[in-house]
Amino acid sequence: MSHSTDALNRFYGVIPAGGIGSRLWPLSRADAPKFLHDLTGSGQTLLRDTWDRLVPLAGDQRIMVVTGRAHRAAVEAQLPELADHNVVLESEPRESSAAIGLAAAILQKREPGVIIGAFAADHVIKNAVVFRQSVREAIAAADAGYIVTLGIQPTEPSIGFGYIKSADPLDIAGAPTARSVASFVEKPDLATAEKYVASGDYLWNAGMFIARADRILEEIGTNEPELLAGLLELAEVWDTPERGAVVDRIWPKLKKIAIDYSVAEPAAAAGRLAVIPGQFDWDDVGDFASIAKIHSGGRKRDLAILGEGARVLSDSSSGIVVSHTKRVIALIGVEDIVVVDTPDALLVTTSANAQKVKAVVDALKLSGSSDVL
Amino acid sequence: MSHSTDALNRFYGVIPAGGIGSRLWPLSRADAPKFLHDLTGSGQTLLRDTWDRLVPLAGDQRIMVVTGRAHRAAVEAQLPELADHNVVLESEPRESSAAIGLAAAILQKREPGVIIGAFAADHVIKNAVVFRQSVREAIAAADAGYIVTLGIQPTEPSIGFGYIKSADPLDIAGAPTARSVASFVEKPDLATAEKYVASGDYLWNAGMFIARADRILEEIGTNEPELLAGLLELAEVWDTPERGAVVDRIWPKLKKIAIDYSVAEPAAAAGRLAVIPGQFDWDDVGDFASIAKIHSGGRKRDLAILGEGARVLSDSSSGIVVSHTKRVIALIGVEDIVVVDTPDALLVTTSANAQKVKAVVDALKLSGSSDVL
Repeated sequence: MSHSTDALNRFYGVIPAGGIGSRLWPLSRADAPKFLHDLTGSGQTLLRDTWDRLVPLAGDQRIMVVTGRAHRAAVEAQLPELADHNVVLESEPRESSAAIGLAAAILQKREPGVIIGAFAADHVIKNAVVFRQSVREAIAAADAGYIVTLGIQPTEPSIGFGYIKSADPLDIAGAPTARSVASFVEKPDLATAEKYVASGDYLWNAGMFIARADRILEEIGTNEPELLAGLLELAEVWDTPERGAVVDRIWPKLKKIAIDYSVAEPAAAAGRLAVIPGQFDWDDVGDFASIAKIHSGGRKRDLAILGEGARVLSDSSSGIVVSHTKRVIALIGVEDIVVVDTPDALLVTTSANAQKVKAVVDALKLSGSSDVL
Repeated sequence: MSHSTDALNRFYGVIPAGGIGSRLWPLSRADAPKFLHDLTGSGQTLLRDTWDRLVPLAGDQRIMVVTGRAHRAAVEAQLPELADHNVVLESEPRESSAAIGLAAAILQKREPGVIIGAFAADHVIKNAVVFRQSVREAIAAADAGYIVTLGIQPTEPSIGFGYIKSADPLDIAGAPTARSVASFVEKPDLATAEKYVASGDYLWNAGMFIARADRILEEIGTNEPELLAGLLELAEVWDTPERGAVVDRIWPKLKKIAIDYSVAEPAAAAGRLAVIPGQFDWDDVGDFASIAKIHSGGRKRDLAILGEGARVLSDSSSGIVVSHTKRVIALIGVEDIVVVDTPDALLVTTSANAQKVKAVVDALKLSGSSDVL
């Protein structure tokens, strides 16, 4: 068995299925989060797409899903193959360090030396074969001790994503394209984004992390020792009858912090982070503008229509219509429009304003309209 | 009794309540035509507004309503005072010459010398007192033998209305502002409309006609003798048991022609038409742009919201929202927008495209979506 085959055999997929996707309201909401929708027209949910992408790497018995208690039934309906011991239920959301860290701690206890790869349940990736090739490289680099992230080769100067500045190539067997990471940078303005793309050194930060579970826990312990202590205490009893009581006591007190801050950025600063430049199409479908873009193939004048049995009539209109009712929807002379039609709520905006949807959700919360959130 | 009091005593209001108002789809539709909606925020339907405007002139026992059979119950629910003999039901729509001509023929047979005033059921008039003063002048001019129309003093160079070119003042007792009419002109382009308004000679054609019933019938007879023959035959049996059979035989064959062509324009050409320049606010609320204008008081940046219990959340948006569901409607950064939300159909367009709504209705008809029309 070659070294790299051995590492692949120790690979475990982890799918954090948590965020609601408030920028996709009223489609995404508390009881129908983004990962339970078909946003690509693939005919299945983003969660199922994510699962199907990982099965050829991990097999369907080595993928763990971390999700909210409220979504258990929906997740299991989407993933009938998902084994009970691969379901980790959060009693309340505690951010990505707790979710991925708990998965790492549980798996490391069950299977020391396991390599985990965490992939959000609600992103879109077009070329799965290329994606898996990048993950294989990442697994090799993880086996060598690195915390590894997949960066995405930018196709345009997006201001909607954070960037990873890559540095020197690393010499890792089985990971020929791996580079070290100089730094992470937050979402830039357009001029900066253009410079980044022109330089060739910058990649989109897609939030995908691959590492040995013990290495992830070690990084968390260095930066957030109390969080690590809680995670280890949880893992200790996870596969025992005490799980419930310990979860109730510990989980609600865990620090809410994104894994970028507890693991990735400190590891990068210490030279322990590697990046694999991914050559596949990726999008976090963060708002309706990006869904419209995915569906129009970049053509400005198109009207994308999502929704089974949609009855849409368009005269000189472009943008996106999401129809989750059987109502007739007529659009006349509206350009770059976003119309999202659900049984209890309707959104009308433009691609340019798509990022502001979250603010509307916040305003609805304050105004006592939580019934539609 | 003065001459003018005598004429006013012979006055009979006629309200043709016919058109669906296709440009106001999906609000207005076959089973809920424009005149059955509250488009002004008055708290009552346009039909009821029209009735209330006429009662001080005619009394509630001297107003006749001409409407479709399908709307009888709705009309009677709106107008509990409406006497049975004042309801004229059309088995199918035959345009305004047939509707107003039949009312004239029935009333003339019942009460020779009657003066009728026909006022659409679905227009908006703001200053009813000034309106009634103009109608009183019109009644005096009608008593003198003229076909009389109320023209509206333009407040802007509208390209949505036809115009009336007024000529010399007429010397008619009780009608000091009456002028003769030089011609009717169709909806102009903007440059022409601006010239019209600057000249001071042009008035908006509001389609309101006041005349002795015998004079109207005489004009119809001159221009459309077959139509007149049919109307007289109908009137002859209207108040007898034969009405049903004769209606079934004659009504479907009557020529469909607007009263502008069978009466007003020929009378104008012959010098038998008078116009009273009306100083009251009038609008035919022909499309959603005009409803938005009525509600915003002309302020461009406002968002008008129609609909009881509407739950509308707006961020930097202007235009009009009509909410006939209890759904939450969120608008973000859409300007001059028109959103009409009904249980089975949704319209999204802009004020500038409001006139095109009729074309969409036609397209829906062709595409087999008559269920929402």
